[in-house]
Amino acid sequence: MEMGLCFENDGEADCNAVLKALQPIFQEQGMTETVHNWEDHGYLVTYIKKNGSFANLRIHPHGLVLVDLQSYNDDMKGRQEVDQLLNKVEERMKELFHGNIKRVKRLPAILRGGVIDRYWPTADGRLVEYDIDEVVYDEDSPFQNIKILHSKQFGNILILSGDVNLAESDLAYTQAIMGSGKEDYTGKEVLILGGGDGGILYEIVKLKPKMVTMVEISFDKWPVIPSNIDQMVIDGCKKHMRKTCGDVLDNLKGECYQVLIEDCIPVLKRYAKEGRMFDYVINDLTAVPISTSPEEDSTWEFLRLILDLSMKVLKQDGKYFTQVLVAGGRDGCCGKGSLCPTEPMPAGSSMTLLLAKAEPISDCGSASGIRFLKDQKLLHNSSCNQREVRICERNSSADSQVTEEGGAGHVPGTSA
Amino acid sequence: MEMGLCFENDGEADCNAVLKALQPIFQEQGMTETVHNWEDHGYLVTYIKKNGSFANLRIHPHGLVLVDLQSYNDDMKGRQEVDQLLNKVEERMKELFHGNIKRVKRLPAILRGGVIDRYWPTADGRLVEYDIDEVVYDEDSPFQNIKILHSKQFGNILILSGDVNLAESDLAYTQAIMGSGKEDYTGKEVLILGGGDGGILYEIVKLKPKMVTMVEISFDKWPVIPSNIDQMVIDGCKKHMRKTCGDVLDNLKGECYQVLIEDCIPVLKRYAKEGRMFDYVINDLTAVPISTSPEEDSTWEFLRLILDLSMKVLKQDGKYFTQVLVAGGRDGCCGKGSLCPTEPMPAGSSMTLLLAKAEPISDCGSASGIRFLKDQKLLHNSSCNQREVRICERNSSADSQVTEEGGAGHVPGTSA
Repeated sequence: MEMGLCFENDGEADCNAVLKALQPIFQEQGMTETVHNWEDHGYLVTYIKKNGSFANLRIHPHGLVLVDLQSYNDDMKGRQEVDQLLNKVEERMKELFHGNIKRVKRLPAILRGGVIDRYWPTADGRLVEYDIDEVVYDEDSPFQNIKILHSKQFGNILILSGDVNLAESDLAYTQAIMGSGKEDYTGKEVLILGGGDGGILYEIVKLKPKMVTMVEISFDKWPVIPSNIDQMVIDGCKKHMRKTCGDVLDNLKGECYQVLIEDCIPVLKRYAKEGRMFDYVINDLTAVPISTSPEEDSTWEFLRLILDLSMKVLKQDGKYFTQVLVAGGRDGCCGKGSLCPTEPMPAGSSMTLLLAKAEPISDCGSASGIRFLKDQKLLHNSSCNQREVRICERNSSADSQVTEEGGAGHVPGTSA
Repeated sequence: MEMGLCFENDGEADCNAVLKALQPIFQEQGMTETVHNWEDHGYLVTYIKKNGSFANLRIHPHGLVLVDLQSYNDDMKGRQEVDQLLNKVEERMKELFHGNIKRVKRLPAILRGGVIDRYWPTADGRLVEYDIDEVVYDEDSPFQNIKILHSKQFGNILILSGDVNLAESDLAYTQAIMGSGKEDYTGKEVLILGGGDGGILYEIVKLKPKMVTMVEISFDKWPVIPSNIDQMVIDGCKKHMRKTCGDVLDNLKGECYQVLIEDCIPVLKRYAKEGRMFDYVINDLTAVPISTSPEEDSTWEFLRLILDLSMKVLKQDGKYFTQVLVAGGRDGCCGKGSLCPTEPMPAGSSMTLLLAKAEPISDCGSASGIRFLKDQKLLHNSSCNQREVRICERNSSADSQVTEEGGAGHVPGTSA
């Protein structure tokens, strides 16, 4: 368990005065002190306790003081002791600065090495602690690690190789990528790429389609990204994500659906050759980063291939739905208020996705949204005229929502 | 900036072998080493760099190895250097254990002492990093600190004394506490207690009520809990939370509404005396912990007083809506799958809220929910027979949702 306290002041701090004021608090605990003085960078003082706990006191000359405690035990008594010690530090600091401390911040304790890992960063790299209380499923498939963890708040959560995929509470995501209840799937031919949690399949099957085919994304082309149709994902989900998938994964086929556990690329090529066409193609990739950095060119090549093949099997008035991951996060390729980069994607293939000035549709309307649906301007070759492409954006996962989706339905593309 | 890496192994670790393997990585960086050997608790090794950065290597004999780096600079170069060092540590550890490491976990970097504080714990004490990119408003009123921070994901977020209150994206919360669109406010008399962000007022005013009165909770009785009608909260919200409050806070009154910035207790007493009655009382307390611990008795006394007075001004067929905060979090007074404590509240007053086996209504149905609406069994005296009391539960704040609300509407109470 680690607990930290942070003090900030304007201007210079008298490092020595801070050290002198705080020393007795640690010494009272029977902690042995080691002082390192950088001269121009302030102090690092390490306090060591006999029971294996220790504390770092870092005094910066710019007025920042950090106190961190690490203890092996996370029992109630240990926590209280740490709390009391930090309370004393806080009190002493306030005395020393006569209450003129710009900011005092105490972060919740971080637990590492516990049986249950509660820390699952968002796709944009933010630290989030979930209220996970049980490891329901934890298996390694040949492709990835598959975890299903129970959260009091979100129900069971599917995590593939550390990437939070979907929680049982994420029906809104499934509804969004299906077109937010505005599409009529009755009697339609639907192709789902990915979607191994079974959520999209389960929801569409309820709507009496003619036939839904679900097929794996591709392991060969994109080995670094966790994949979500994998027999072991299906095994985990059909047992532990039944709120999401119902019974559609039990037999992998039914009157109006089939699940193919194979690479979608040859399947798409075969369909294209046979002239098999779909009313809807729903591409439920785990996470597609929107980024213009050159090293991700191969990802874009792959995406173009999937999009290209999808367009070949999409009827003239068909619709293609997918989601993308909004990159940026801390380093922010996104400007204030905008959820989307304004730079065009690297061009060159037959398709160029241009995310020009795309605005989130729901724009903080109903519900805090992590995933937004947005209209997408598509600069393309003639083959996909009249077809609708929708991109469902996502930042994070289990704590995500889409409940409102405005914007015009059909956006005809303009020729590139 | 702090970055950490955590390794876990089953069984005993040879602490000395780990130390020997990792030492060169830090020494290559020109870091000076200080080793503390507990004998029975493993090692703490502190590595200090000339530029003010340092690292802790904690080797536990139980097989847990923690590496933490703290550097003052958070530039791209500093980040890359830290990343590279941690990569080397990870590589070396995998070599040493021939890949047999039970778990390797690297948490996102934690930034402390920055201009923008991105870490706002949830009400149940979990660490959450928001994608905050701007401090929009930061003022101290006589009662509390008021912050409005901009998040790319949630829009502007109101934070009162460190407690995340409401984001502009939280319309779902406002709708939930108003009865999830199932109530007809046309021509009705409505009393809002608290609600200083103006969200409830704005939404109800749209529904053509007869009169809505919004009044402050109470500063005197409950000084420790941040309050949300405070002139400075209103000043901040009317400028920066307009998606939430529209124009209702601009003049504090209109044809069918008035905002009273005064303690609700005397106001409620006056209304009760005058016989002024309401169709709806909506109590938008900032955070009401559900807890049975004795030290919070005064909070319950206060809540009973508010509830008691509210019942006195509520028409015979009126409705009382409120929200509560689900306590528990890590220490979990809540059992698996249950969002609610099963112990009764301390009794003794004229009202006893009994949260017996309350189940979340939406139960992971649509949308990941942080706030749930639930039916509430109310053991009460005769004065509130036939009245409906609804409690809208909350765990957290900006990242919260209610989109589904099932359950029966009217729950007649039984006599205590």
